Amino acid sequence: MKHRIMDIIQEKPWLGWTIFLGTIVVVFLIGLLAASIMERRGEADLLVQVEPIADWEPRNEVWGENYPREFETYRQTADTSFLSKHGGNGTIDYLEKYPNLVVLWAGYAFSRDYKQGRGHYHAVDDIRETLRTGVPMPGTCWTCKSTDVPRVMNERGVGEFYRDTWTNLGAEIVNNIGCQDCHDPKTMNLRITRPALIEAFERRGKDINLATHQEMRSLVCAQCHVEYYFKGKEEKYLTFPWDEGFSAEDMETYYDEVEHVDFVHALSRAPIIKAQHPDYELYMTGVHAKRGVSCADCHMPYRSEGGVKFTNHTITSPLATVSTSCQTCHRESEENLIRDVYERQDKIEEMRMRTEDALAKAHMEAKFAWDKGAGEEEMKPVLQLIRQAQWRWDWVAAANGLGFHSPVEAGRTLGAAIEKANQARTLLVRVLARHGFTDPIPLADISTKRKAQAYIGLDMEKNRSAKQEFLSTVVPKWDKDAAARESKY
Amino acid sequence: MKHRIMDIIQEKPWLGWTIFLGTIVVVFLIGLLAASIMERRGEADLLVQVEPIADWEPRNEVWGENYPREFETYRQTADTSFLSKHGGNGTIDYLEKYPNLVVLWAGYAFSRDYKQGRGHYHAVDDIRETLRTGVPMPGTCWTCKSTDVPRVMNERGVGEFYRDTWTNLGAEIVNNIGCQDCHDPKTMNLRITRPALIEAFERRGKDINLATHQEMRSLVCAQCHVEYYFKGKEEKYLTFPWDEGFSAEDMETYYDEVEHVDFVHALSRAPIIKAQHPDYELYMTGVHAKRGVSCADCHMPYRSEGGVKFTNHTITSPLATVSTSCQTCHRESEENLIRDVYERQDKIEEMRMRTEDALAKAHMEAKFAWDKGAGEEEMKPVLQLIRQAQWRWDWVAAANGLGFHSPVEAGRTLGAAIEKANQARTLLVRVLARHGFTDPIPLADISTKRKAQAYIGLDMEKNRSAKQEFLSTVVPKWDKDAAARESKY
Repeated sequence: MKHRIMDIIQEKPWLGWTIFLGTIVVVFLIGLLAASIMERRGEADLLVQVEPIADWEPRNEVWGENYPREFETYRQTADTSFLSKHGGNGTIDYLEKYPNLVVLWAGYAFSRDYKQGRGHYHAVDDIRETLRTGVPMPGTCWTCKSTDVPRVMNERGVGEFYRDTWTNLGAEIVNNIGCQDCHDPKTMNLRITRPALIEAFERRGKDINLATHQEMRSLVCAQCHVEYYFKGKEEKYLTFPWDEGFSAEDMETYYDEVEHVDFVHALSRAPIIKAQHPDYELYMTGVHAKRGVSCADCHMPYRSEGGVKFTNHTITSPLATVSTSCQTCHRESEENLIRDVYERQDKIEEMRMRTEDALAKAHMEAKFAWDKGAGEEEMKPVLQLIRQAQWRWDWVAAANGLGFHSPVEAGRTLGAAIEKANQARTLLVRVLARHGFTDPIPLADISTKRKAQAYIGLDMEKNRSAKQEFLSTVVPKWDKDAAARESKY
Repeated sequence: MKHRIMDIIQEKPWLGWTIFLGTIVVVFLIGLLAASIMERRGEADLLVQVEPIADWEPRNEVWGENYPREFETYRQTADTSFLSKHGGNGTIDYLEKYPNLVVLWAGYAFSRDYKQGRGHYHAVDDIRETLRTGVPMPGTCWTCKSTDVPRVMNERGVGEFYRDTWTNLGAEIVNNIGCQDCHDPKTMNLRITRPALIEAFERRGKDINLATHQEMRSLVCAQCHVEYYFKGKEEKYLTFPWDEGFSAEDMETYYDEVEHVDFVHALSRAPIIKAQHPDYELYMTGVHAKRGVSCADCHMPYRSEGGVKFTNHTITSPLATVSTSCQTCHRESEENLIRDVYERQDKIEEMRMRTEDALAKAHMEAKFAWDKGAGEEEMKPVLQLIRQAQWRWDWVAAANGLGFHSPVEAGRTLGAAIEKANQARTLLVRVLARHGFTDPIPLADISTKRKAQAYIGLDMEKNRSAKQEFLSTVVPKWDKDAAARESKY
């Protein structure tokens, strides 16, 4: 046979070259085939649903039957042990850790209770249990807590949802933040279910339907991880203050124009804007956003299991998943990368501490000035500076990630906060001097949460027992009604 | 002939396979050869000197005969037109641009004249011409200006060099910063010629001889681009305050321990530390240093010309050489990269402006307090805060790069400066109130350099004519003596 081939080659020498070149081409194609075999099947190939998901299905476990990997990783947001490795357990008591906060929020429910956020899986439990809730609150407060929200909004109308009371809606809202919030149940495409984001885009002259898939991988998060307020005394219409832009100054311009005040401070009487969690806005000023890295790229990195590539739905700090979150771009050791994050956060925290210290003192000193007979007119510039400082501080402090989403912008904003808080204190010394007081202003001991809460006059026993009453009477009724409703699905 | 080969193959079939595999091996080797031919010859291969360079040769043009590419690029530091594209022309008058600086430096020569640094090629001209020089100054002031320094230090001894007067040494120091400062004339290896850096390493228990080549590509710059002071009233011994570390706080600890004061402020009487240009220290806190990127990687990127790869000695902003400086690592458009740098710098500049404004006012208000009869004791904490604030501000402001070398650390440090400058102002209001003054403190108009210099009592006409006198009498004599000396080389 060998000899037979050689005979042919001898007769037709061009044939030898053809075989030679042909071999090269075939080997190349075999390589392509091998790559194709080894390639992981993407999520998109797995769309066949065991059982079709109903349009407004709020139950994450029902979606989970079709998408077990996404659901299992989502369910792991129940576990807060990662957070304990990194300085928390998902329930750090921030008021205990930073007692100045109690004073900063005197006159507002945050002074009673403010803990580290736990995972999405705990959203409903956490809002029920915090000492901040149970008091009269609008339906709007449920907006970001549950997959039931799109369903109820669809049934009743968006405006009606916001306008209702939080207590009235309690029995409707029982499923934690999950699948329905971000996905179309038929196509699994990302979709925006919360009107406030769509409306904010519209007011900026933008059509959110034109967002790319990569943009959507941040925008679904921006439905909730943003700054917002409740517009209208009755309407309580959830609104993002984005009309002027995303920076602390831009949003302040908006709030000043609409004369928005979240609360009048109980000590200083400053008209305070309480920041929510402007994660998306701060992130947008940082380098990751500039490079087209989405929220999901870091917080929901791709994984593979059994040859299937899927998105990790255990949404938490990317420090829990450095190898898939960071190291896909940053070829540095995990140790180095974590240290780099901590270094930035430590610097921002130092600036936060400077601001919180000055702000807490400014509030207390302002109260002292009022007590000494200071007048409205002379206090006006003081209160304005306190409002500006506290807003800038909160714009950084309330956002997740301790400033890491954009450390230079966080520092710049805190720099302005430090200036304004201290300028307020300078003015206060002059106000007091004019009322005959030139000694150092005596300040209360607010070195612990307990002392600070006592100083601002909170009756924590009463708050706690009211919450117990609420949890043992109202909540069980909600759960019973919800179970009855869901049994009919 | 074709048929003859086929005959042989038919007789010895293994020969066909040998030719086939042999061809593959040969083609591979030809590939290696081609790569070797196309490879650029490195600088190290070009060590044969046309004429050997003498041990302490200060003249850059003599070195340049052997290393024309390095010399030509070095000589281009004469051209400051790049700087003009990026907001300067190499001679921005900072006092004109930021008149607050005049007040910050009242009582110190920087209040007379402070311009943007030009390239290394202008070092000697610039120090001769600035209005800051001509007054009694120690020899130490020449240390970083010239390739003549290692020669004169070798001839006279280091301590003698520092102790001499600046005017006495003028005829010796005529060649601009250049080759001798960083290179061994025989091997062209990088070497440290300035004792202060070696001594600072020793005091930190480190041997600079163990530095890697990559570390040396920053350390040769750190001979001068650092914070330093002149130790000893007579000795004026050039010393880096690195014993406690590199941060503003670490160096302040050192300075406080040795009770160092650069000048007592003419208005506030605060004991000020004047920062030099802690470029290396700020850079060491940033991510480029953490990733092992040296000064030279960005400021002296590799180039090739005529197949020879060499280091670009046109040391200036890397924004002039984005493609070789930045884009070797950062695969982003030049436009994006430059915008990213400017964004960081703008944020840091905003914080600088806040600090400069507060500091200038604090100095003027302190003077007002002294004038109103304030006492030493009550002013002590005020002056301490001003010292701390101004040092932190200057640690960032005096460094090149507008904070870009480490934006988060620059922001953190400025945050502390903003706090302390404003705290000083708060105390001053109370001091004044105790002396019966509770109005807003009247401040002079310092909105231009001219107004600010008049306010602090500078006779600029006198300064300028003294400088003209110096340039037309002393300097020509220096040059004549130097030419006579060099003609004997």
